[in-house]
Amino acid sequence: MNKKDKNSRNKADTDHGIPAPETQLFNTKFSRRDMLRLTGASGLGLLLGGGGVGGIMAARQAAGRAVPAAAALGQNEEQAETIPFYGKHQAGILTPAQNFLCFASFDLTTTSISDVQKLMQAWTTAAAALTSGTMIGTANDKPNLPPTDTGEADGLTPSKCTLTFGAGPALFDSRFGLSGKRPASFTDLPAFTGDSLEPQWCGGDLCVQACADDMQVAFHAIRNLARIARGTAVLRWTQEGFQRSGSADPSGGTPRNLLGFKDGTGNPDVTDETQMRNIVWNGSADGTAWMNGGTYLALRRVRFRIEVWDRSSLSDQEATFGRHRQSGAPIGAGDEFAELNLAAADATGKPLIPPDSHSALAHGDGSVQMLRRSYSYSSGMDLKTGQLDAGLVFISFQKDLMKQFVSIQQRLSKNDRLNEYMVHTGSAVFACFPGVREGGYIGELLLG
Amino acid sequence: MNKKDKNSRNKADTDHGIPAPETQLFNTKFSRRDMLRLTGASGLGLLLGGGGVGGIMAARQAAGRAVPAAAALGQNEEQAETIPFYGKHQAGILTPAQNFLCFASFDLTTTSISDVQKLMQAWTTAAAALTSGTMIGTANDKPNLPPTDTGEADGLTPSKCTLTFGAGPALFDSRFGLSGKRPASFTDLPAFTGDSLEPQWCGGDLCVQACADDMQVAFHAIRNLARIARGTAVLRWTQEGFQRSGSADPSGGTPRNLLGFKDGTGNPDVTDETQMRNIVWNGSADGTAWMNGGTYLALRRVRFRIEVWDRSSLSDQEATFGRHRQSGAPIGAGDEFAELNLAAADATGKPLIPPDSHSALAHGDGSVQMLRRSYSYSSGMDLKTGQLDAGLVFISFQKDLMKQFVSIQQRLSKNDRLNEYMVHTGSAVFACFPGVREGGYIGELLLG
Repeated sequence: MNKKDKNSRNKADTDHGIPAPETQLFNTKFSRRDMLRLTGASGLGLLLGGGGVGGIMAARQAAGRAVPAAAALGQNEEQAETIPFYGKHQAGILTPAQNFLCFASFDLTTTSISDVQKLMQAWTTAAAALTSGTMIGTANDKPNLPPTDTGEADGLTPSKCTLTFGAGPALFDSRFGLSGKRPASFTDLPAFTGDSLEPQWCGGDLCVQACADDMQVAFHAIRNLARIARGTAVLRWTQEGFQRSGSADPSGGTPRNLLGFKDGTGNPDVTDETQMRNIVWNGSADGTAWMNGGTYLALRRVRFRIEVWDRSSLSDQEATFGRHRQSGAPIGAGDEFAELNLAAADATGKPLIPPDSHSALAHGDGSVQMLRRSYSYSSGMDLKTGQLDAGLVFISFQKDLMKQFVSIQQRLSKNDRLNEYMVHTGSAVFACFPGVREGGYIGELLLG
Repeated sequence: MNKKDKNSRNKADTDHGIPAPETQLFNTKFSRRDMLRLTGASGLGLLLGGGGVGGIMAARQAAGRAVPAAAALGQNEEQAETIPFYGKHQAGILTPAQNFLCFASFDLTTTSISDVQKLMQAWTTAAAALTSGTMIGTANDKPNLPPTDTGEADGLTPSKCTLTFGAGPALFDSRFGLSGKRPASFTDLPAFTGDSLEPQWCGGDLCVQACADDMQVAFHAIRNLARIARGTAVLRWTQEGFQRSGSADPSGGTPRNLLGFKDGTGNPDVTDETQMRNIVWNGSADGTAWMNGGTYLALRRVRFRIEVWDRSSLSDQEATFGRHRQSGAPIGAGDEFAELNLAAADATGKPLIPPDSHSALAHGDGSVQMLRRSYSYSSGMDLKTGQLDAGLVFISFQKDLMKQFVSIQQRLSKNDRLNEYMVHTGSAVFACFPGVREGGYIGELLLG
């Protein structure tokens, strides 16, 4: 897949492996909205002999033949909502962050690698449907069997759904004979100063990052993938996330985290292919053949001490981030995207941007970068403290966890002023496979 | 407030107590997006002497005078996103359900009724700002003090935010001298068959239902109201909810719950004033003067046994609801909005819609109705069972809890086929005050 296309929020996909509408219908795959159109139109309903299960089946069969008129309806509109699933790289990495996240970590319950292969094959087929707004396998539904699609996204657009799959370090233990394929620097993260990790938010054999502009679409994807995994893998943990929706912020500015500060200002440019090769994608020279075109994901579940933060002064908050709250600009500058000038000082020689501020420490000498793609979360209250359990699902993608995420996080965990206001409660890393071609399956170079 | 206006998703408010833009700016209240426009435009930024806190303050002061041009920008657009806060009834009841819910239950930590009055006065001022996309009191912010607004919704539209306030039965105990004002039938709900309530999801002295088309806007509202309550009330529990977003379902059809079925088909028509008087609103003849124009809210946190449901056949699922999954029509009918014909039978005389189906039991003889306004929820995994903690935040509004919600729920809890697939884990009822006029405060007829 061409990177430029993957990052476009509006450009319709035309040539990256998404079947043309005719092909879709010939294969008796129906978009969720086609179904609605076909069965919702009362005239057509009568024509098909009334409702009920029989009527729905009749509608489906009719839809398989009555192709062009129905398929043409709203086609451009839907394609604009579709992020191609197949391609050189997985989607959901360079894709501009959609409004919602459902992140799921799975534990395998099998010890057979062929079961894992079958799971990945089934997940690939389902993921292609889920990301294109197609119901999973409903053409074969029978009233006396459970429906193949759980149905809560029936009638909804694809909503830019992406599904990104990865393998945790645990997959390379002795169970599947894969220990020889573990990339050298791919291990669980070292302990960081101040970590307060809870086992229920850590690790996993496999992950799926579902993102979509609609929460119900993202939930539906994870729920159906978990269902398909039954007998082979079980959910280990899940975490929802959100950011301000695009429609609430027509300016399209950098989103704010729950501390009220813009988050993502210093991110590298995902449209710069050279930067992405240097920062995100593993290439053929990176040693691990099955990761060529893949990347490594680091996730940290970071609870904010919201009540403490809310009692701190604006100047303390700005010194903590090293940025102005309202504009997002580095302290002393007026523009959000101004360079971080760590040498700037006031009349007394005191640095304008405190050296232990979050921005200064995360930036360091500027030589190490990663691609952040985080979401806010709000999970009700923490029963132990009576305070809001809300914060950040920090997610970053990088070529090398140790050289990038770990080196930055070691600096931050020791000295970051922000540490006073947050606690890391969850942690996981995953090797995100390269993209998959139609006919292939996710992770086939590792598992095949 | 005129009900028709409250229910309009698009009509701009012009005459229901929202100050004209000139008034807003004269009072140094700025919409979150005005702030962005004024300080974000680099030309203006330079004019105002650069960034930083000083620059922002200068921008605010300048904005207080440079009225018409700035205020005119996008005015219609924003008003379409605004649901009036002031009016005869509270918003968030007849308002078509926005995409997101943040529901908060509070416990008072004071025993002084004047503290409660002050809280409601402060909440009223804040709620008027939060629902109109105005920053809370930022005109008085000083760098050495905590910001008065936590900032994460800075730059976002009002996003149809509504805040609905209510009092729980506990408020009428001996603490505040209000026991004489408790409406006769307003008590905690009786125990229902099969209840599996957990104390952390039950009850509360006060509630705030925040709804908005943007999750960050809804979260921001609850977080700031909780902050304002500090010293007087603490959060008891919170629960987020969602439905499919309007943009994911351009057809605007009835949303589906997480069991894949349409939920809300049989709801009364909120534009029918007579129905609303009969079903929802307390009037002057209903005996409790401070509830004239108010209504009662019942909330049930219902966890779905998703894994069990997903193993049941389509025909079992449809028999459980008494409706077809795809169309939402009653079994045997083709149209979602067809009347529920409980007498319809097949050739052997067996009712098409099982008498113990959810639809049949909820409908009963059709004489008792309530207005449902529920959301789906997904709260990660239940650590005890290893299954998804997802389901429904059931919310209904009615004139009389006992005659409406309780009578229906007693029928359902005993015989509903759906009980096999769900468990009620939380429960609360609140008396939602009548609406408030500008200059007044929420609950003043009760507390004043």
